[in-house]
Order: sequence, then structure tokens, then C-alpha cells
Amino acid sequence: MDEHIAPVPMEKAYRLLNHGPTVLVSARHGGVDDVMAAAWACALDYSPPKLTVVLDRSTKTRQLVEKAGTFVIQVPTVAQARLTYQVGHRSLFTDVDKLKHCGVSLFEVDGHDLPFVSGCSAWLACKLVPEPHNQETYDLFIGECVGAWADTRVFEDGHWNFERANPDLRSLHYIAGGQFYAIGESLNVDE
Amino acid sequence: MDEHIAPVPMEKAYRLLNHGPTVLVSARHGGVDDVMAAAWACALDYSPPKLTVVLDRSTKTRQLVEKAGTFVIQVPTVAQARLTYQVGHRSLFTDVDKLKHCGVSLFEVDGHDLPFVSGCSAWLACKLVPEPHNQETYDLFIGECVGAWADTRVFEDGHWNFERANPDLRSLHYIAGGQFYAIGESLNVDE
Repeated sequence: MDEHIAPVPMEKAYRLLNHGPTVLVSARHGGVDDVMAAAWACALDYSPPKLTVVLDRSTKTRQLVEKAGTFVIQVPTVAQARLTYQVGHRSLFTDVDKLKHCGVSLFEVDGHDLPFVSGCSAWLACKLVPEPHNQETYDLFIGECVGAWADTRVFEDGHWNFERANPDLRSLHYIAGGQFYAIGESLNVDE
Repeated sequence: MDEHIAPVPMEKAYRLLNHGPTVLVSARHGGVDDVMAAAWACALDYSPPKLTVVLDRSTKTRQLVEKAGTFVIQVPTVAQARLTYQVGHRSLFTDVDKLKHCGVSLFEVDGHDLPFVSGCSAWLACKLVPEPHNQETYDLFIGECVGAWADTRVFEDGHWNFERANPDLRSLHYIAGGQFYAIGESLNVDE
């Protein structure tokens, strides 16, 4: 694991998604790994941390999630905009070398048989909370976070510090047609 | 209705939320209006546009949503950071003048008996898609969008243009403890 990656306490894990970044979803089953992009991912609870993610039925990643019952949600960076776009527009069903063609490299984390995408700023290992009605009707999946990590250059002591980190580490917020926004400046409201 | 507000075509309405902004949720029932903040709101479908939003059971707004079966999701701006924080931290249960104390002003839209918050950049009028199990178990509510509008100074022809608009119109992305990020710069990946 990269020297900059450190665990995030479970009670702070929701903060990795609270600002609404576009994420990468990765999963592994039967020796197959896949990674897709998802703009529709969202925190759902604090403790234990839970999240929702919409997984279209046309994706191989969804099949792997359904079979394995586990997945990773990770936060890609500005440096990964092209990778993020590409994993969202190529399918493992038609391109068996999708991950290579998209420039994805994976790493392992002890104790989790899951594919983690290198170069992201944060990772949430999740177990699927089965809700067949939501999955079938809305393509809506619920995950419970069982491990969280972040790149300490951009998330430390429970806080993002995008404003002080390299701009290449900012999160991506997808709109459509290849257009993203990067996260911007910090604002503080006195409590 | 403000001269800058224009309808958004239903097929483009998902883009109002696609970049993951913190939103304001408003609802009306029995002569009572309330507004709350929600960082956990997310697009769910394109056509008809649907969305999810997490509404804590301690909020009056949730009661109104449950009773009325309708609500508005709106995208507040940098200029409304304090208002957004305050409507998320005061309750109509304990402060009957909450909206006045938070500086909220409301406007009406013909054909929708709903409270719309002035000064936001976008509005989605929604009808509740009742899912009692999700609501009770996860505080998770699904809405189907029945009308969408945006401020043409920052969203026009189906696209946000944060990078060209007044920075006060940028969307807010809440973290915790009164800290928000504004949305930042635009990036385009060639398709």
C-alpha cells in the first residue's frame, strides 16, 4: 500500500463522500475484477457508515457486486479524469482488457479480497446490504462500509484539505458529455 | 418568479444534481412550510428524473414530506452558505420563526403548491414515491421530479456554467462543522 495511504476512523468515513464526488466502483468475483464510474453515489448513514450507489444493469461491475456481495467505492482525482471517463464508457463485456485500456492499476489491502484502484484519494470497502426490491426496481444498491482509507496528502485528521493539497488531488464532479467540475474553494460558516 | 428563472427540460433535470451539491429540502402541509439542508441527496434516474434524499426523523420537514407527498429539492449558492448551515441546525419544532431567523424567503410557482426558496440556482419539484421500508429503515426517500427550473445566469441550455457566472452562484458541498467547499473549475475529457 502506498506510503501516503492511511486508515480513516469509521466515524469519519462519511466525510469522504459528503461533498458529492463522482466515484469509482470496483468489485471482484471468480477471478474477475472490474471498475466503473458512478456519479450517483451518496452517503446514507454515519455509524456504521452506509452509502447508496446506482449500478446500471448493463455493467459487469454490478454482476460482480451481486455475486461477491462486496465492493469498493473510491474517490478519483483530477489527475484521473480521463481514466474516470473511460471506465464509465467501456465495458468489460465487450473489452476484456478494459482495465488495461483505461490505464487502471489495482492494489490489494490486507484482509480485503477486493480490487482497490491506485491513485485515488479515498477508498471505502463495503459489504452489500441486500435489498432486492431497490436493486431490481431502481438499480439502487446499499453498502455498509467495513474499512476506509485516504491519501494523507489530501485527507488528514478527519478533514479534506483540497485547498492546501496539489490541485491534481481534487475530487471530480461529473456533469455529462465528458465535462467534470473539480471541487473548489473552502468556505467556513461560524457555528 | 424571478426574471432569471427558466424551466429546465425534464431530460436534463438530472444534471442539476449530478455534481453532488448539498441541497435544501422544502415542503408544505396544513399551512406550514419548512426548509432543511441535506448533503445526502442524489440523482437516481434520468427519465422520468428521480432522486434520493435522506431525511432524518427528527426534522419537521420530513413530517411535512410524509403528509403532503410532495417536496422541493433546490441547489443553494455560495451566497447562501450561512442560510444553508442555519436551516440545517435549527428546527421548526423548537423555533416557530425558524425560516425568518435563517433569512429564508419563499416564492410560489404556478401549478405547484410548494414553497420554493428564493436565491437558489435550481429547483426540482418532486412527488414522493412511497417506499415505507426505505423510509423507516434508512430514512431514505425517493422523489420523482415533476418540474425543474434554474437560474439562467448559471445553468442554461442544459449545462451549468459555474466557470463563467458570478462565483456567488457556485454550488455548495458540505463536509462537517460549518465547512463547505464551493464547486470549482471545469475540466473536459475528449469523448
